[in-house]
Amino acid sequence: MSDLHTVLSLHHQLATAYLDDVAHRPVRPYISPEALAAQLALLPGAEGISLKAVARQLKPVLTHTPATSSRSFFNQLFGGSDPAAVLGDMLAPLLNNSMYTYKAAGPHVLIENALITRMAGLAGMPRGEGTFTPGGSMSNQTAMMLARNEALDGIREGGLAGQRLRVYTSSASHYSIRKAAGMLGIGRDNVVDIGVDDEGRLDPRALAAAIAADRAEGFVPVMINATAGTTVQGAFDPIDAVADIAEAEGVWLHVDGAWGGSFLLSEQTRHRLAGLERADSFTWDAHKMMGVPLTCSLLLVREPGLLTRHLCEQATYLLQGDSARYNPATRSIQCGRRNDSLKLWTAWLHHGDSGYARRIEACVALAAHAAATIRAAPDLTLLHRPQSLNVCFVVRGRDSADITRALHERGLAMVGTGVVRGETSIRLVCVDPDMTPADIDAFFTHVRAVAGHTAA
Amino acid sequence: MSDLHTVLSLHHQLATAYLDDVAHRPVRPYISPEALAAQLALLPGAEGISLKAVARQLKPVLTHTPATSSRSFFNQLFGGSDPAAVLGDMLAPLLNNSMYTYKAAGPHVLIENALITRMAGLAGMPRGEGTFTPGGSMSNQTAMMLARNEALDGIREGGLAGQRLRVYTSSASHYSIRKAAGMLGIGRDNVVDIGVDDEGRLDPRALAAAIAADRAEGFVPVMINATAGTTVQGAFDPIDAVADIAEAEGVWLHVDGAWGGSFLLSEQTRHRLAGLERADSFTWDAHKMMGVPLTCSLLLVREPGLLTRHLCEQATYLLQGDSARYNPATRSIQCGRRNDSLKLWTAWLHHGDSGYARRIEACVALAAHAAATIRAAPDLTLLHRPQSLNVCFVVRGRDSADITRALHERGLAMVGTGVVRGETSIRLVCVDPDMTPADIDAFFTHVRAVAGHTAA
Repeated sequence: MSDLHTVLSLHHQLATAYLDDVAHRPVRPYISPEALAAQLALLPGAEGISLKAVARQLKPVLTHTPATSSRSFFNQLFGGSDPAAVLGDMLAPLLNNSMYTYKAAGPHVLIENALITRMAGLAGMPRGEGTFTPGGSMSNQTAMMLARNEALDGIREGGLAGQRLRVYTSSASHYSIRKAAGMLGIGRDNVVDIGVDDEGRLDPRALAAAIAADRAEGFVPVMINATAGTTVQGAFDPIDAVADIAEAEGVWLHVDGAWGGSFLLSEQTRHRLAGLERADSFTWDAHKMMGVPLTCSLLLVREPGLLTRHLCEQATYLLQGDSARYNPATRSIQCGRRNDSLKLWTAWLHHGDSGYARRIEACVALAAHAAATIRAAPDLTLLHRPQSLNVCFVVRGRDSADITRALHERGLAMVGTGVVRGETSIRLVCVDPDMTPADIDAFFTHVRAVAGHTAA
Repeated sequence: MSDLHTVLSLHHQLATAYLDDVAHRPVRPYISPEALAAQLALLPGAEGISLKAVARQLKPVLTHTPATSSRSFFNQLFGGSDPAAVLGDMLAPLLNNSMYTYKAAGPHVLIENALITRMAGLAGMPRGEGTFTPGGSMSNQTAMMLARNEALDGIREGGLAGQRLRVYTSSASHYSIRKAAGMLGIGRDNVVDIGVDDEGRLDPRALAAAIAADRAEGFVPVMINATAGTTVQGAFDPIDAVADIAEAEGVWLHVDGAWGGSFLLSEQTRHRLAGLERADSFTWDAHKMMGVPLTCSLLLVREPGLLTRHLCEQATYLLQGDSARYNPATRSIQCGRRNDSLKLWTAWLHHGDSGYARRIEACVALAAHAAATIRAAPDLTLLHRPQSLNVCFVVRGRDSADITRALHERGLAMVGTGVVRGETSIRLVCVDPDMTPADIDAFFTHVRAVAGHTAA
């Protein structure tokens, strides 16, 4: 038996044991990094050890791994585990193709192109192009780079020449917008926070006023970001109203749908993104609501050719044969690139369009169940009308951070906090379509259990 | 049996069949993307299909996947398949932790930190810090951002204000240096190509002259890049001599060791990186010579605190509890981030330091065997003295591109071309330590077979 066959067996054993373990327990009680480090042999030695010995060292690591597929994990904008996606992604390390060229990746480039075409179509960008990036932050950064370069001639070659640039985004948008401006030489201070309404949606009038004021002072607006699914409240900015302003001003419109982009998959929810077809670029993370393992993010661009114009480099040692359409390196911020598309393809094949619609709708129903539970409870206060899968609430008279910490310390649930209109709330994220209302009910039972023991 | 258990079985079957298939054949004959697309059902349907049906659709994809672990794959700066690394990486999609916080990733953050400490130590940066990035291009870009921000005050907040910046790199360096300058607002035209000697190494006198000339014209030098292992020839720039200039000029020194950084693992080869301990930052891809699946790249930085200073954003919804040391999001260009460290950890445990040294030395020996074979052959010409694992040669009187294309079309070998001093050569990369001299001999047999049939 070759070492690779040995490894397939060891993997099967470890994975089965892990699945059996997490099926019968909630998240683990909190253990400090220092205490955990003391329990693990972390450093590779001078001499190697057998594959079986490696598997033995993996066991305590798996035991202490936060179980993001557990039914008590509500901490992030991802959760659960999609078997079909896991199947695709477990094959990727064995195949180990780099996604820069057809020569090196063959059918995986075709799969990637097919997914990009499908998703651009759903986004209302039928002529569009796209690129897989390692996460929503990278997609947003790439979009801002395109916007910057399209707003002003010669930036890519000559660099920024002291133009005073401005980017507009809501105060509830993701931090990657400000971070990207810092990376790209635009400057974090040149990201203008636009106010939001009580539901966390960007106020278009405030946006128009901010642009007008900046123009009067000689600033060059390069990008407006509208968020489709904000991080804390899950709010959708009014894309159509923002697009009116972007068109009137001639400013690039980017829609950050890292979180909420998947609402395009259901007729019941896609109205939240009305106007997206007018955007210049769109970030959509499949590793969030589409449930595929991290990371799987797409940047879609309405006008074909822009990614190549602003990213392609000459690389005669790499780009040999086949047209550029089949050599994604010409459109990527990366050179060597992991295969992030196979897992999305296997998941989509398994669920089909209709299955993905049902999965999104199931999550929306879970969030509605959570919101109804909170509304009916005298000891809980809902802080907003859920627009997607985020449900932010407080336990009356209790500190939200204390409660989330106590839930984690006792191993009852993993959930985080988020600030809503200045108030720190518990942010419950209902992103696992395989959960049931009973799982949500169990969560609230745990919240009440620890709230009874925290100081009033 | 749950769907996840079904998937583990299907994966085992598919993976075993794939291994058996690639063990008994070389790379596949070339098939055009259009012809391949016609053979595959690429688009997910409206209705889903069973997991078994997904597995059936995967089979032809696997059959047509370029076998990067085959003994006739010499096309990239990676190749082969490391069972221990594959074991770690096949677990990652099942665990699905995002590497931003200890809360979400637990022991995997400890593993990542341990690897960073080990590798910074090997690089002569004992106080250093680091971040895993999705590839060498991203590591280089991050380094250039740090260099830019450290050279001039206030860039991150205020943006570039018309300063005329310059970056220096050899004409043989990787395209990601120029690409990064385009992204970061420095401008591709402000990357100054420094000449190289016959072996492809940067000429320090030309570097010093270029900086002096630029200073006289009012340019601000922000970064010097020295390459440890160039893409085509595998050359090592003289880091110590470059560091003398960087120190004298007060300019950030980055070493791009994406390819050659792993030469630190053997006492026999680490002298190639003498002077690295004087660098400010260092890119090291473990998915190349360390043989772990794509991608696994590190950016190491000598002075602790710089990554946080130039990358950390406030994110109260995310960073909850545990010190920043255990929350890598504070030092990362990404937000959600895939676990790229587990595979490196399992590989290093299995091989140990001594095993990794032997593996690097085995690759060097294969390259030496290839070079000796070429030198002894009247019909072949070696174009340089190999400094690492790249062996560039031509078949006398034959076109290198014709030969590599014919090798691929007949399914005999996958290898690329690279330009050495204006001449297009066959670039043989000996990066798979599990190959033997017989595999190299077989490659040359195939080269001669197709050369006999190409036009003189």
